[in-house]
Amino acid sequence: MASESGKLWGGRFVGAVDPIMEKFNSSITYDQHLWEVDVQGSKAYSRGLEKAGLLTKAETDQILRGLDKVAEEWAQGTFKLNPNDEDIHTANERRLKELIGETAGKLHTGRSRNDQVVTDLRLWMRQNCSTLSALLWELIRTMVDRAEAERDILFPGYTHLQRAQPIRWSHWILSGAIAGNPLGVDRELLRAALNFGAITVNSMDATSERDFVAEFLFWASLCMTHLSRMAEDLILYGTKEFSFVQLSDAYSTGSSLMPQKKNPDSLELIRSKAGRVFGRCAGLLMTLKGLPSTYNKDLQEDKEAVFEVSDTMSAVLQVATGVISTLQVNRENMAQALSPDMLATDLAYYLVRKGMPFRQAHEASGKAVFMAETKGVALNQLSLQELQTISRLFTGDVSQVWDYGHSVEQYAALGGTARSSVDWQIGQVRALLRAQQA
Amino acid sequence: MASESGKLWGGRFVGAVDPIMEKFNSSITYDQHLWEVDVQGSKAYSRGLEKAGLLTKAETDQILRGLDKVAEEWAQGTFKLNPNDEDIHTANERRLKELIGETAGKLHTGRSRNDQVVTDLRLWMRQNCSTLSALLWELIRTMVDRAEAERDILFPGYTHLQRAQPIRWSHWILSGAIAGNPLGVDRELLRAALNFGAITVNSMDATSERDFVAEFLFWASLCMTHLSRMAEDLILYGTKEFSFVQLSDAYSTGSSLMPQKKNPDSLELIRSKAGRVFGRCAGLLMTLKGLPSTYNKDLQEDKEAVFEVSDTMSAVLQVATGVISTLQVNRENMAQALSPDMLATDLAYYLVRKGMPFRQAHEASGKAVFMAETKGVALNQLSLQELQTISRLFTGDVSQVWDYGHSVEQYAALGGTARSSVDWQIGQVRALLRAQQA
Amino acid sequence: MASESGKLWGGRFVGAVDPIMEKFNSSITYDQHLWEVDVQGSKAYSRGLEKAGLLTKAETDQILRGLDKVAEEWAQGTFKLNPNDEDIHTANERRLKELIGETAGKLHTGRSRNDQVVTDLRLWMRQNCSTLSALLWELIRTMVDRAEAERDILFPGYTHLQRAQPIRWSHWILSGAIAGNPLGVDRELLRAALNFGAITVNSMDATSERDFVAEFLFWASLCMTHLSRMAEDLILYGTKEFSFVQLSDAYSTGSSLMPQKKNPDSLELIRSKAGRVFGRCAGLLMTLKGLPSTYNKDLQEDKEAVFEVSDTMSAVLQVATGVISTLQVNRENMAQALSPDMLATDLAYYLVRKGMPFRQAHEASGKAVFMAETKGVALNQLSLQELQTISRLFTGDVSQVWDYGHSVEQYAALGGTARSSVDWQIGQVRALLRAQQA
Amino acid sequence: MASESGKLWGGRFVGAVDPIMEKFNSSITYDQHLWEVDVQGSKAYSRGLEKAGLLTKAETDQILRGLDKVAEEWAQGTFKLNPNDEDIHTANERRLKELIGETAGKLHTGRSRNDQVVTDLRLWMRQNCSTLSALLWELIRTMVDRAEAERDILFPGYTHLQRAQPIRWSHWILSGAIAGNPLGVDRELLRAALNFGAITVNSMDATSERDFVAEFLFWASLCMTHLSRMAEDLILYGTKEFSFVQLSDAYSTGSSLMPQKKNPDSLELIRSKAGRVFGRCAGLLMTLKGLPSTYNKDLQEDKEAVFEVSDTMSAVLQVATGVISTLQVNRENMAQALSPDMLATDLAYYLVRKGMPFRQAHEASGKAVFMAETKGVALNQLSLQELQTISRLFTGDVSQVWDYGHSVEQYAALGGTARSSVDWQIGQVRALLRAQQA
Repeated sequence: MASESGKLWGGRFVGAVDPIMEKFNSSITYDQHLWEVDVQGSKAYSRGLEKAGLLTKAETDQILRGLDKVAEEWAQGTFKLNPNDEDIHTANERRLKELIGETAGKLHTGRSRNDQVVTDLRLWMRQNCSTLSALLWELIRTMVDRAEAERDILFPGYTHLQRAQPIRWSHWILSGAIAGNPLGVDRELLRAALNFGAITVNSMDATSERDFVAEFLFWASLCMTHLSRMAEDLILYGTKEFSFVQLSDAYSTGSSLMPQKKNPDSLELIRSKAGRVFGRCAGLLMTLKGLPSTYNKDLQEDKEAVFEVSDTMSAVLQVATGVISTLQVNRENMAQALSPDMLATDLAYYLVRKGMPFRQAHEASGKAVFMAETKGVALNQLSLQELQTISRLFTGDVSQVWDYGHSVEQYAALGGTARSSVDWQIGQVRALLRAQQA
Repeated sequence: MASESGKLWGGRFVGAVDPIMEKFNSSITYDQHLWEVDVQGSKAYSRGLEKAGLLTKAETDQILRGLDKVAEEWAQGTFKLNPNDEDIHTANERRLKELIGETAGKLHTGRSRNDQVVTDLRLWMRQNCSTLSALLWELIRTMVDRAEAERDILFPGYTHLQRAQPIRWSHWILSGAIAGNPLGVDRELLRAALNFGAITVNSMDATSERDFVAEFLFWASLCMTHLSRMAEDLILYGTKEFSFVQLSDAYSTGSSLMPQKKNPDSLELIRSKAGRVFGRCAGLLMTLKGLPSTYNKDLQEDKEAVFEVSDTMSAVLQVATGVISTLQVNRENMAQALSPDMLATDLAYYLVRKGMPFRQAHEASGKAVFMAETKGVALNQLSLQELQTISRLFTGDVSQVWDYGHSVEQYAALGGTARSSVDWQIGQVRALLRAQQA
Repeated sequence: MASESGKLWGGRFVGAVDPIMEKFNSSITYDQHLWEVDVQGSKAYSRGLEKAGLLTKAETDQILRGLDKVAEEWAQGTFKLNPNDEDIHTANERRLKELIGETAGKLHTGRSRNDQVVTDLRLWMRQNCSTLSALLWELIRTMVDRAEAERDILFPGYTHLQRAQPIRWSHWILSGAIAGNPLGVDRELLRAALNFGAITVNSMDATSERDFVAEFLFWASLCMTHLSRMAEDLILYGTKEFSFVQLSDAYSTGSSLMPQKKNPDSLELIRSKAGRVFGRCAGLLMTLKGLPSTYNKDLQEDKEAVFEVSDTMSAVLQVATGVISTLQVNRENMAQALSPDMLATDLAYYLVRKGMPFRQAHEASGKAVFMAETKGVALNQLSLQELQTISRLFTGDVSQVWDYGHSVEQYAALGGTARSSVDWQIGQVRALLRAQQA
Repeated sequence: MASESGKLWGGRFVGAVDPIMEKFNSSITYDQHLWEVDVQGSKAYSRGLEKAGLLTKAETDQILRGLDKVAEEWAQGTFKLNPNDEDIHTANERRLKELIGETAGKLHTGRSRNDQVVTDLRLWMRQNCSTLSALLWELIRTMVDRAEAERDILFPGYTHLQRAQPIRWSHWILSGAIAGNPLGVDRELLRAALNFGAITVNSMDATSERDFVAEFLFWASLCMTHLSRMAEDLILYGTKEFSFVQLSDAYSTGSSLMPQKKNPDSLELIRSKAGRVFGRCAGLLMTLKGLPSTYNKDLQEDKEAVFEVSDTMSAVLQVATGVISTLQVNRENMAQALSPDMLATDLAYYLVRKGMPFRQAHEASGKAVFMAETKGVALNQLSLQELQTISRLFTGDVSQVWDYGHSVEQYAALGGTARSSVDWQIGQVRALLRAQQA
């Protein structure tokens, strides 16, 4: 019938099998990634069948040995795919049958392909999240090491990319380390999706629900968003205009023509990958939208998304670790970027401490800034008499306001930029690192 | 200077203030939602100032009374906005000053607007997530109630929208209830983002990090994806062709012309909202991408997204609850949609239980289906002799395979469609409901 | 310096070159796609240099011959990549130098790598859009062929998935063919982005602007959205419940166990790809968002997106053409799905033609439907007397309303479902096909 | 029945109408935007009915006068909505009936609500695109005016945010003006979607196809992506570190405390809106994905997206025009940011002009840069003797390389940064502006 119709309508294809459809349908090119977990899952399942009395001890042993042989072939690169192996599951079962004969046919009793697909992917993600997690911890460890070693470097804190107040360089590093801390989402993700101690409560939902994939892709998207922001900061700090940091040659592309010009390719690529990773997350959600319940072939889209995002995350985390660990910090430029007007808030607090309401103190400090600007001098060059025309509360001890080190030390509340507070943050992150290793 | 340039370049605007920029910059039209939590946060902050010795007892009392008055005006709808009130924070502080005078100026000592914005939004979301959570539980409760009452209705389970095997109607309902179960993400979301017992570890990160917003929007997107799939199923089940369910008039739009035609507007709107909600999530992530660290005005985009998504979720959850609670189920049509060929897998299991390897049994059953098709009879109308030409393992007890009730009862493993298994699922969800109420 | 820092901070990597960064930075794995257009572009550029007096005739000839040799090596699969070939441009230039010596160094005078990248991609897309366009026209031709041959098959038109009015099957096919018609966007896309007759007006914009990529990805997303809707319709029409169409075996996956069960994998995959393609479009836009002007390495993300989307579109269009050309239509089931209540609107028009205002006629027809429902008869079984209790305008000629063929013939306005109108639509699409071939 | 079910399952709602569903279903709150085009469309339709003989001249006149009265009430703010007015179409028809009686019932003969919805939206978008287009042209005009006036200001061109070569400030402005030039897409959009001279070819497609909405949202997304990049550049150029430009007070938010700190809120908001607008585009595509053909209520999502995006674009374009027209340029800082090493490429071209192959010249120039760096002098301070140790081709005329004005003048190819080339670009944009006004 099909071929008759084919003739009638004159389509490209009239045979029994459209080779483009075969390729379109096949997932073996990318689900080979799953060979190890597919064998692992099948070994566990065959033991379950034995326990249920559906396989004898001898059959189980035969299957287990056969599966080990299949795994060995994959590991050694000698596994040969047949043209009919449309996915990793049929490939492994076909090979098992060649190796051990008919007993192989008992392996999938009561187990659908859709079950296998989803179990394999969960197993793979459990392994893989663990690898990614280790890479993320390595990045965080590198950041906290630097933060500890460079605690005494001060530089401008920015809001709206405008210089605001002096902060410790370590304070910036830690803001990234903490943003990168995946513990919250990651732990939940592992618990909810990959911890096989919990039983899937509904069999219909089990084969079609891809929350664990969507949540992984979203975790990656959010993580990349943070990394894109860190990359943006470092790209800016590395411009000629900022000159706060210098990327190692290993992570920049020098131009042989213009040696002064080192392009921060590594950071630009990190920034760009936020788009790619999010695109995969967006794509999967769109694929899932409005899909009828249980298994539909649409769900096959999940795997390439997971594999690509996982590879991207792995590269990004390692490159980011390399960038941070080899970055050179230009202390002098950072120090020179500090200017007295960044202490205007401190000047207001000086007055607050002498009893003035904050909004008034704020206004008084503003007047001082304006006076300095009008006179064309730096804020700290206003004389005490000049300041006293603004408020009688100014006395000789105002001079201690003009010390950047003193300024940052005021922010000793938890989370602040004082040395003690930064030390506390380092301690917090180190505690997480220790908890992670335990 | 600006005006000179303005003259020179001849732009639309030459004055000191561009009214369109003012409106563009202002957030008061939507951040009024935050009036209550803004007052709440300021009251807590003033107590903190008192404890730190920056406010006297008398000043604190004066501020607290003033803030209560501000709240009262909002609650009664008598709060009057000034044109200069660019956001809820300045509006409330301006009004407080009118009410209690200069002391109001001390309230925000050491507290930036950016701190206030993020604290208010966190407080609002804590309240609001709790409301949404209650609505979600109400939906789940409604579903589990129906699942319990309609346990004995069987209908076809579908994969690829092709009839596969008989299942209980309750099994379908519970697959939705479980997918809708937000406990995992929600609990984490509350713990990580909204539980103020935990301290924000880094002050730079605190003002610019919007993970709690992104996670809320993603939770909503994923939740809507599930609901869009449930809506799709019910739209299909409600077509003339399926005729499994009938929507209550309250949730459909009848055509006065064609009374036979009840459009499932409620379900279509639920399905459509998955796009809108995801769009907000996508938009926020794009806004965050590559943003320099700490506060940038870009972050102002967070609030409208949260408010709109929260409103949408609230309507969707209530309408979904209404739809499920008033839906009529057509048992007869469901029963008629079951056919013997859906028991082909059971026929294979029959042979497995007699000792045949699964792949062989699978093949034998396929032969029986083909034989029936060739003879133009239903699968259960093949005689024992005919079946025995396929396998000698068929005996008289094969007749018990042709019972749909018997078929579903075989799937008694946890998560399956047997009565006991469905009861267990109901119990699981009820336990969650009880845990929720406690 | 870097290595000292490396030692200090203990990162993973301390050497001069981080191999992961090299791989992260390299684009050669995927930009090999561009070998042909890269040679083509370089040949054109060397002729330009000759014309500008920067190359002699002899040098130009030497370069042209060298480039032809490079192209030959690629075509024959003998081109050998070096580990240092980070992209297709450096690979080709390196090889050219090996083949012809120092003259190769003159080829890129006054031409930056960024220019080359963007020119190559534009050339590739011009070729590739042309291929995709041909595949799309093939799909449209197949659809219009079927539409012509099957003009006389009637079936229910649906809105809200509820049966509305009888329509021609060809009317449905053409709605898809017209939606798939890419002429509008495509022609503009070619004109704006790929027609090299137009000159890029600004050199800064030229290297960093990726509108032609974004527009291609959006065109693909919108095209896939249409195809996902067509796929959804056909999946529904192919369910047991609708049974309007049957997919050819070549485009479905049968289950060896359940021969009655043919899963519409081809259509499900088409539907799913809408997500993937859109994800690429979303990812690119996010990557572009907020990027500083001119070239940034972030732009490297464009190519993989284009290549993957192009491959996906190519497969989807061919599979869709195959599906449509081999699809079997079940005329009987379509006819049986028509019922008299779908003619209620026709009944109203009958009264309108007799002079009744439409809203009244609408109401009268509704009463007739209700009367039939109450009496438990089909709408066309109401007697003339019964109809006349609703309106005296009903006379004997009302009987001709109850003819489905007559019903569709009323919609003879352009775009309607009458035979003449469908013929006109076929003519319109055929005219486009002819215009395309010319 | 519904109420019985309601009682049984204990849902929130048991009456005949769920008020939340009514609100969920109603679109009147936002489709009021359409009142004018709805009247306009109905007037045209009634003339069509007259021509078709379905309305008499008297009836048509009565309807036209009634519709004018309806429009007048909307224009004067006296139109009163009823609780039952679920959308603008029913509201207007209900009011028309109150005004002119039963004749109103003839207005919608042969016209479905879905037709009206889509026609109204197309009409509204035609008007609205025209307004947005004018605002965009105003922005472009402002940019080209500045470009013309400030042609002689040089500053560094950047790639990878690293200083590359000197360029004209106007060259940067024009790169934005050209990117913002919407002619391509916009014209096509108008032609394809809104030009009612063309007839919709298929009635099924006509009510459900939303390409004109998707294309508008994508045009807006792409336009916003460009504006986000321009905003990013200006935010950077306005930092203390770059200090190339200063935002007018009208478009920045000064801190009363820190007068040195002017936050570029306007630009940050422009940058952020790219996310919001794209989110709407993404949301609509997701809503469309997999939707069955013809009208489904899901399509109701289109309107709020269009209205919100249109409002956002309108504000963004006006604020961007204001920002550009009032921006102050700091010529001195721009000039100081130029340094001799940015002329290294020019040095190479000097050698190329003397006959050296480009790659060798490139290398020679690199050696000069390295030599200068080693000696701790600027590149232009190397003596002729020193340069000659690198290449004998250096002669006394090398001194003219060290002139930034001379450098930019070399790039006289169309699109380059030479004065003549910039003038040509200005001319190109002015020609578009003239064509637009004509």
